[in-house]
Amino acid sequence: MQKVCLVIGAGAGIGGSVGKKFAQEGYHAALCRRSDQQGLDNMVADIEAAGGSASGYLLNTVKEGAIEKLVAEIEENVGPIETVLFNLGAQIGNRSLADTELKIFELGWQIATFGLFRLAKAVFPLMEQRGGGTLLVTSATSAVRGNAGQHSHAAAMGGRRMLCQSLNAEYASRGIHVAHILVDGAVDAPDTLGKLLGPALFEQLREERGRDNDGLMLPEKMAETYYHIAQQHRSVWTHELDLRSFSDLAWWNHAP
Amino acid sequence: MQKVCLVIGAGAGIGGSVGKKFAQEGYHAALCRRSDQQGLDNMVADIEAAGGSASGYLLNTVKEGAIEKLVAEIEENVGPIETVLFNLGAQIGNRSLADTELKIFELGWQIATFGLFRLAKAVFPLMEQRGGGTLLVTSATSAVRGNAGQHSHAAAMGGRRMLCQSLNAEYASRGIHVAHILVDGAVDAPDTLGKLLGPALFEQLREERGRDNDGLMLPEKMAETYYHIAQQHRSVWTHELDLRSFSDLAWWNHAP
Amino acid sequence: MQKVCLVIGAGAGIGGSVGKKFAQEGYHAALCRRSDQQGLDNMVADIEAAGGSASGYLLNTVKEGAIEKLVAEIEENVGPIETVLFNLGAQIGNRSLADTELKIFELGWQIATFGLFRLAKAVFPLMEQRGGGTLLVTSATSAVRGNAGQHSHAAAMGGRRMLCQSLNAEYASRGIHVAHILVDGAVDAPDTLGKLLGPALFEQLREERGRDNDGLMLPEKMAETYYHIAQQHRSVWTHELDLRSFSDLAWWNHAP
Amino acid sequence: MQKVCLVIGAGAGIGGSVGKKFAQEGYHAALCRRSDQQGLDNMVADIEAAGGSASGYLLNTVKEGAIEKLVAEIEENVGPIETVLFNLGAQIGNRSLADTELKIFELGWQIATFGLFRLAKAVFPLMEQRGGGTLLVTSATSAVRGNAGQHSHAAAMGGRRMLCQSLNAEYASRGIHVAHILVDGAVDAPDTLGKLLGPALFEQLREERGRDNDGLMLPEKMAETYYHIAQQHRSVWTHELDLRSFSDLAWWNHAP
Repeated sequence: MQKVCLVIGAGAGIGGSVGKKFAQEGYHAALCRRSDQQGLDNMVADIEAAGGSASGYLLNTVKEGAIEKLVAEIEENVGPIETVLFNLGAQIGNRSLADTELKIFELGWQIATFGLFRLAKAVFPLMEQRGGGTLLVTSATSAVRGNAGQHSHAAAMGGRRMLCQSLNAEYASRGIHVAHILVDGAVDAPDTLGKLLGPALFEQLREERGRDNDGLMLPEKMAETYYHIAQQHRSVWTHELDLRSFSDLAWWNHAP
Repeated sequence: MQKVCLVIGAGAGIGGSVGKKFAQEGYHAALCRRSDQQGLDNMVADIEAAGGSASGYLLNTVKEGAIEKLVAEIEENVGPIETVLFNLGAQIGNRSLADTELKIFELGWQIATFGLFRLAKAVFPLMEQRGGGTLLVTSATSAVRGNAGQHSHAAAMGGRRMLCQSLNAEYASRGIHVAHILVDGAVDAPDTLGKLLGPALFEQLREERGRDNDGLMLPEKMAETYYHIAQQHRSVWTHELDLRSFSDLAWWNHAP
Repeated sequence: MQKVCLVIGAGAGIGGSVGKKFAQEGYHAALCRRSDQQGLDNMVADIEAAGGSASGYLLNTVKEGAIEKLVAEIEENVGPIETVLFNLGAQIGNRSLADTELKIFELGWQIATFGLFRLAKAVFPLMEQRGGGTLLVTSATSAVRGNAGQHSHAAAMGGRRMLCQSLNAEYASRGIHVAHILVDGAVDAPDTLGKLLGPALFEQLREERGRDNDGLMLPEKMAETYYHIAQQHRSVWTHELDLRSFSDLAWWNHAP
Repeated sequence: MQKVCLVIGAGAGIGGSVGKKFAQEGYHAALCRRSDQQGLDNMVADIEAAGGSASGYLLNTVKEGAIEKLVAEIEENVGPIETVLFNLGAQIGNRSLADTELKIFELGWQIATFGLFRLAKAVFPLMEQRGGGTLLVTSATSAVRGNAGQHSHAAAMGGRRMLCQSLNAEYASRGIHVAHILVDGAVDAPDTLGKLLGPALFEQLREERGRDNDGLMLPEKMAETYYHIAQQHRSVWTHELDLRSFSDLAWWNHAP
């Protein structure tokens, strides 16, 4: 069976681009997203049209047992998961403390922290049996600095970063490469930034900062670094790296 | 009514010592802990015997509405909460990923991250109305580095640290001082370290490292720094500081 | 002989205020600054008028042997240096890479990094013989983040922070407390900020942000925390803490 | 003229391997090292034998004007420097404060901090005129944590890291990519680790940790990541990343 790259959070941005890149390099891309069957089908069709192998799954990660079941299903029916990208964020825009309901705060944790924990529990034993594997985690600036209005997001991402370090400390020597990829800037992603801003504002931003002057991070370019990290020789693994556009200041140099 | 220092997590260690210190300085110490009514009564009695004012509450923080109800009750019946110490940890010893059940991971978050979020939501609006207040948060090394066996603890504490930064960013200018106090070492605390080790080992450790050579952190000495931080003039607030014994290496210099 | 608090960099800001505070608490304050004999004499006179003990020294720290000679002289003629505050910065305002001459870059290092190294070499052996001592180091945001125009300053302060960690790792267990105090904001200091801005702008800033609304950090209030740190019990030492006004955002939340 | 990859510090480890990799990819590799003309000639010959283009230079970087002159010479006679690797460390082994002479401390700074500053001043204006370029900086754990015996090394590397951030903040938007590569582990490098340990111990270490089990970082594998970083699309640049062997703990998880 073909080795699998499982993408949790495969929208038309980082997730989809990473899936496509791995498919180009010979992996089966197993793409999961919460909704939009049509978008999912299109991504699978695009990969297949280019000669690659892919499959799509609608997945509500917060549902009890859903991640665990999907991992089992893919391992049984598709192939061994060699690389998994955890690409779920928990950004809900800026919400004051007063406006952040308990349920919202909990949901952020369920998606961004607990989801990764459950994924690791499901897939690491399988990877370990096979001698290794790779877990790529898309992260955000909120994992390293809190901010006004970011109570839910920062708590979820900060916890996740410490979880990644814990997973790495326990599993690196057993052959599992955990990489925490700090995406520090706006990504040219219709399914996340695009939906957050709405089509008109998103196109305006793209024109102002994107396309010609590369002010938005291009997901197909990010995918090349994700792929490189997953291919690093085990004597030289990267656990953490940042990514931002040349025209952007680093998070420690600009206001949020 | 007397100004109140509310201590969430008032065992015979940091929490109890901070309560005692604030009581000596003229605050009413409202002491909360999950169990041990007798221990709680003794702490209150000790403070009162020394001429201070205190009250004790058994509090299961993970119970829905419990923190919120307690805050309301104290504000109504005891006095305005000027300082609150959130002193709950989520250390469960070293547990491998395999041995960390989903429920345990969730509980760590509920106690150490969600509990602080709920507390802030309950008490910050009241503090803000009065022009200010102080939130002291006892933190641990796991808030800044993950480690093997620390999946639950590190995720909970790392999330909490980012939450503290978020609360600080939103509320400092409104007069609420949030301090994240990184306790980087073993505390001479019978109720936490003592119970973790058992009485025999704890006494042995105390003899080897504590008492005479100050190798264990003395909670009554820590309380002096907690109190100092809470009294800092608003033009010079500390948001984060570390504390460790002179004989201990900093976390970045020693293996966990 | 009276125990001495030596202040390297004793202008009318942090340095002078710390000297005054320690003098109030019974130390002899040995105040050093590079120039302004009159200002120095006034500070000594003020301390003595308040019943304290002080002496003043003009000191060019970059001169070969100057720090070493001063330490020896104070130890012989005044008393044992129990606490030393290294309060020299190397801020030269924003200078582009092109405008930062080699000499300027070197001078920044000589003052802010090499000066501290020489001081530690001179005073630590004496402190160690006596069983301990305290080194307080005033630091700045540039020690934890570089920035455009800050090539010289950031390199000097970043090196200094790592030096402080190294000194702490080697000397804490021998009784010497090294504290790195991250001053993250504008200080109401006529001799530094005042000279940088000029009298008119400085008064304007003071009126806008300072005095009534505590938007500038008040050095006499900072001195209280400096003193507290120097008095911490050896079982609970702080190595690093930050200080900023309540109305200011933390460095990780605002643009430089 | 061919685009140039200039390597400052081209021994038989990271520097040589990066030079070789860039030569394979079509760059002219300009290799500089302080001594060992024979070793240098061999490296050039090896690259040329493999069909690549290279030249070698003995360079004492601390000599006044030496870096500046070399840059000018290469730009005039060889080609435009598109990528430069600054690969000089300042590790002198563990030396107590007492055993670290002033001259040693200064030399560490001259090599590892000042040298990079001079290099940037010499080469950045040229890169900027051409629309961009890349500066890769090999860094070490000492850039992020000080330690006993590391006074000189940590001060030099910590200053260098802040300098890299400053350079990045000023020059990224002008097209110059600065990457700070944190090498957190032992490299299988005869010219550095090999000389530090001596041939017998080095071979023993290699047998125990290296070769078969990849416990030493393989420089030719590191070179692949260095090259990848230099090729990142400008919308997705990495400023900082770490590298370590899978079998090694991260610096925050192990004692130095």
